[in-house]
Amino acid sequence: MSKEEVILLDFYGSPFAMRAKIALAEKGVEFEARHEDLFGGKSELLLKSNPVYKKVPVLLHNGNPVSESLNILQYIEEAFPSPPLLPKCAHARATERFWADFVDKMLFEAGNKVWKSKGEAVEAAKAEFIEAVKALEGVLGEKDYFGGDVFGFLDIATIPFTSWFLASEKFGGFKVEEECPTFMAWAKRCGERESVAMALPDPVKVYELVCMLRKMHGIE
Amino acid sequence: MSKEEVILLDFYGSPFAMRAKIALAEKGVEFEARHEDLFGGKSELLLKSNPVYKKVPVLLHNGNPVSESLNILQYIEEAFPSPPLLPKCAHARATERFWADFVDKMLFEAGNKVWKSKGEAVEAAKAEFIEAVKALEGVLGEKDYFGGDVFGFLDIATIPFTSWFLASEKFGGFKVEEECPTFMAWAKRCGERESVAMALPDPVKVYELVCMLRKMHGIE
Repeated sequence: MSKEEVILLDFYGSPFAMRAKIALAEKGVEFEARHEDLFGGKSELLLKSNPVYKKVPVLLHNGNPVSESLNILQYIEEAFPSPPLLPKCAHARATERFWADFVDKMLFEAGNKVWKSKGEAVEAAKAEFIEAVKALEGVLGEKDYFGGDVFGFLDIATIPFTSWFLASEKFGGFKVEEECPTFMAWAKRCGERESVAMALPDPVKVYELVCMLRKMHGIE
Repeated sequence: MSKEEVILLDFYGSPFAMRAKIALAEKGVEFEARHEDLFGGKSELLLKSNPVYKKVPVLLHNGNPVSESLNILQYIEEAFPSPPLLPKCAHARATERFWADFVDKMLFEAGNKVWKSKGEAVEAAKAEFIEAVKALEGVLGEKDYFGGDVFGFLDIATIPFTSWFLASEKFGGFKVEEECPTFMAWAKRCGERESVAMALPDPVKVYELVCMLRKMHGIE
């Protein structure tokens, strides 16, 4: 392989950017993570590379930009095939992609609702959030990882959101571990991997970020 | 190839189901489309096959269900590789997937807003809708199809929504053709393909469906 230039437009708290960092690390791809100042001013490179959404993460591979994190994961899988993150069987692949999309549509949205809500709405958001985690727990079953014995695509798509759990717990007044112990055992297992440990921020830092976001949104 | 059983849980007005029908036809895969009565009562098979969202389309391939239409397209591409719908180049593939997702997030949502709105909100929805079509027109450029000379993945992901344009035009008081002639020339080109002509319903039938939906939503 000729020398590859891989740059990730990044933000430490973005679970979507974490996905790309974990996948690149699992593939053994060297990359440069460039921190974007989302609140102070986004870089020209970000605005030019993702003109539609102007969001991180953007993966720049030899100058070619790829946006939207699940799309980036699929791209990484195709551009750097070894080791594979998705199973060989087309149906198993489709199942992992379905649940990765569920993480975006349900887990992420419900987790945000918990810390964006006030008063009675918090309880409804909490119930929705726990339901989403329990659904994922059902997919996991008794397996070590979503795909079975091997850490893969759906693990990578899901694990970053656990770094936001502390913030949801603090504002929701609950513990995910008490509700979903199997899911949290999976999360600990994933956290032992270097790729995950390197990509996920300290949940306390995410909690502080959420405190700031709540002030910005006028929730405090 | 051994005898394949391919069933699509379908609804005539669903642009998402149309995607699957076009892709299967392009691949030359015989399938049975089973109409779901979304308003009268969904089938047990639908509820069992897509317990998370309980929505069409669901593709059942030898009994194995796949849900979410872009996921279904990707599955069809992998399970029935010939002829390919996506280009070979990983970056070009990622670009088509990015814009297919844009169709879901922006074009579909904005199109719905047009017919779901009343009064002043219609103008804002219309502007958003036309902006989304213009963005796609920019991707198309002077090419015959999104991928170049060959009808493919992003064409399949996008063309079904044009069957809803008449309804948006009637309730928005505008003509997409006047705003985006290049896009509509592409739509006509796609409509000449048998796969598309077979899958897309008469826009007048979609308009009648939208009239019913407006009544159901209490907009009329």
